[in-house]
Amino acid sequence: MSLDEVAALTFDVFGTVVDWRGSIARELRGWFGRRGLERDWEAFADRWRALYQPAMEEVRRGRRAWTRLDDLHRTNLRVVLDEFGLAGLNEPEIEHLNRAWHRLDPWPDAVDGLSRLKRRFILATLSNGNVALLVNMARRAGLPWDAVLGAEVARAYKPMPEAYLCTADLLGLRPDRCMMVAAHNGDLQAARALGFRTAFVARPSEHGPKQTGDLRAEHAFDVIAADFLDLADRLGC
Amino acid sequence: MSLDEVAALTFDVFGTVVDWRGSIARELRGWFGRRGLERDWEAFADRWRALYQPAMEEVRRGRRAWTRLDDLHRTNLRVVLDEFGLAGLNEPEIEHLNRAWHRLDPWPDAVDGLSRLKRRFILATLSNGNVALLVNMARRAGLPWDAVLGAEVARAYKPMPEAYLCTADLLGLRPDRCMMVAAHNGDLQAARALGFRTAFVARPSEHGPKQTGDLRAEHAFDVIAADFLDLADRLGC
Repeated sequence: MSLDEVAALTFDVFGTVVDWRGSIARELRGWFGRRGLERDWEAFADRWRALYQPAMEEVRRGRRAWTRLDDLHRTNLRVVLDEFGLAGLNEPEIEHLNRAWHRLDPWPDAVDGLSRLKRRFILATLSNGNVALLVNMARRAGLPWDAVLGAEVARAYKPMPEAYLCTADLLGLRPDRCMMVAAHNGDLQAARALGFRTAFVARPSEHGPKQTGDLRAEHAFDVIAADFLDLADRLGC
Repeated sequence: MSLDEVAALTFDVFGTVVDWRGSIARELRGWFGRRGLERDWEAFADRWRALYQPAMEEVRRGRRAWTRLDDLHRTNLRVVLDEFGLAGLNEPEIEHLNRAWHRLDPWPDAVDGLSRLKRRFILATLSNGNVALLVNMARRAGLPWDAVLGAEVARAYKPMPEAYLCTADLLGLRPDRCMMVAAHNGDLQAARALGFRTAFVARPSEHGPKQTGDLRAEHAFDVIAADFLDLADRLGC
């Protein structure tokens, strides 16, 4: 089966489509800066993100009932605020900061690349972000998704197989008619094991200038692209 | 609570956004016409649609496991083909005709109205159609949904409460921050009973020139509109 049979592209979002680290630091710097508070906001963003996998792991292992990412983020935010000496915010303030994840900025090539890819392919999210987060992000950033799917509709966080298989099933497609697009080798390996086609897009500054992992494709993915415009070129869009 | 608090519009699709009867008749007339076969294709469309509610009712009552609408449509199509003396089609032909539901045309005001409404509101489907059907329809017709939700993600057919409540929950909104938009009094009554705001949009020719039901709003819905452009006017879009 050639890539000509691919009907849908399914996208990882955090890090692949949007710059979570730069955007979270920007939000925090602005909000706390107006209150005269300074911290290393990139370090805050890194720490908030570092609590992401362990929180999802509690859900994956069944030690915690299904919990959407907004709620995991909120729990983790309280921990990090405390660690950075910023406890004592009220509920609306916590909620506003937590929704910074709904206001992430796309990488510069993302909107143009997606718009080109959409001419030929169904574009769906296959993210661990919850639907509301992804919908609000897309409206603000202009991300032209055909469908917002992934962990929440599957009630399973990647890399659990259900997250990928439920998304393909909802699109009415066999996995080999879907191509997973991600900046993360592990995500693509999980998708490939289930029959998805795979496209690696390098995002070497997702974790800042000292990033060490996911600098390049570590496996024989179907497509390896420098960004979404290069992906569109390689897929003939 | 005023309508100012409404953040999302959730749409019935068949009959409210798209003209299923005219579109199905058009598809059948073209396909069978090229094969020299003539029938009353509006009557065929009516009969196919008439088998829709009984098929969903089997699922609602738990007599049949969850089955997406594409599959209910296919079973019903075989029945109607037989009734109209058109049995004997092969599987690809059946599949092509069944996917006529993915190729329904919008009412003339739908795309312009939705585009205006999208500036202010999140637009989501809350349809009994399955995700793939609605995604393919939207891409062909240019329907600018922010999210494709409803029965399949809830695994419950309207008017079961789960279909409405799951959709609001995935949007991260209380029901009273969602407004159900439909051409059907029963759909709106079910949504209203769960706390949704409601907008009736008249589609007096959905069932053809002899339509008798749903010609007008029969309850005190929040908004009553002549079409989607009128709805946009009334909602200040």
